[in-house]
Amino acid sequence: MDYPSKVLAKAVDEISGLPGIGRKTALRLALHLLKQPPSRATSLGNSLINLVNEIKYCKDCHNFSDFEICEICSNDKRNDETICIVEDVRDVIAIENTGKYTGKYLILGGKISPMEGVGPHQLNIPSIERKLNEGTVKELIFALSATMEGDTTAYYIYKKFKSFKVNFSSIARGISVGDELEYADEISLGRSIMNRLPYNDGNV
Amino acid sequence: MDYPSKVLAKAVDEISGLPGIGRKTALRLALHLLKQPPSRATSLGNSLINLVNEIKYCKDCHNFSDFEICEICSNDKRNDETICIVEDVRDVIAIENTGKYTGKYLILGGKISPMEGVGPHQLNIPSIERKLNEGTVKELIFALSATMEGDTTAYYIYKKFKSFKVNFSSIARGISVGDELEYADEISLGRSIMNRLPYNDGNV
Ligand SMILES: [Zn+2]
Ligand SMILES: [Zn+2]
Repeated sequence: MDYPSKVLAKAVDEISGLPGIGRKTALRLALHLLKQPPSRATSLGNSLINLVNEIKYCKDCHNFSDFEICEICSNDKRNDETICIVEDVRDVIAIENTGKYTGKYLILGGKISPMEGVGPHQLNIPSIERKLNEGTVKELIFALSATMEGDTTAYYIYKKFKSFKVNFSSIARGISVGDELEYADEISLGRSIMNRLPYNDGNV
Repeated sequence: MDYPSKVLAKAVDEISGLPGIGRKTALRLALHLLKQPPSRATSLGNSLINLVNEIKYCKDCHNFSDFEICEICSNDKRNDETICIVEDVRDVIAIENTGKYTGKYLILGGKISPMEGVGPHQLNIPSIERKLNEGTVKELIFALSATMEGDTTAYYIYKKFKSFKVNFSSIARGISVGDELEYADEISLGRSIMNRLPYNDGNV
């Protein structure tokens, strides 16, 4: 026997399928839920089901959204001339939490990584071209991880679009080289976006 | 803004309500689910809902079960004369995994802990008396954590029932003092249950 109950075994199987959660932790979480009122697990379970079935992606920036166009893209007070290019939604949240950025975003959905088999064609790079063709964008800011993959991705995008009349910049490396963006503290991240640097052939 | 979508925010709230899971981890898990086919999160969500709504407790030993009487209690091949007293279901799983124990169990549902406000009346101690009154039990084995609370709990039960004609034993402390039972490795735990010691006034 592994578990005394099939519903418990099933829950442990499902929970331990999440990244970074082993079977002992999964069992501990399942037992925790069993000690709470049943409404707690029902609410958690339904929130996960609703998450994947109801989430939408903003047609403009590819951020998650409850609407066709997200709250940032549809906000008239935000500056249309600046697009901050990030890997995923966690980076948007991290930058928004600094309160230092008033432009818009474009979520690539990852970074070029030959090791993980991710090439430029899996990323939302055509949306950058669409935005550039609209003619309002004056600056593209790279806010990518300070890693080899982040650098490769920035360089690929820069090379592809440098013929457009637009400035390229990269957030200042106030964050340590090798750091994932989302783990940077808010003050460092806010400062690095304020002190962003021009991006051109000279610094790559 | 905190999260770009209410369904995402709700899922992060719910996940981060679990013990040991912060908001960054909760967001990482939610984003992981969003990268999987929706059936994955639906299956996980339903497993949690089913867990709390369908689980039963064995009327005999208080273990989790899919039936009124659990598979261990209803198994004729298991020895009725020996009852192993444990704190919770994780300990049953740990001992079963050693393959060294063929008797039955009684799950206390915790241990006496004045610090956490748990007294003997919150534990399944009346079920021990019921089993002793049935007259088949010859040995009660304490398989409790090697902590002050585990010792206090064993001593309380021993004093309460020592007038019964039954042997008391405690699993050998092959596991380090202060260790939680469930984290012991299978070999040490199997050995400690094989080498269990008589439990009486002399060794407390
Ligand atoms: Zn958007
Ligand atoms: Zn049972």
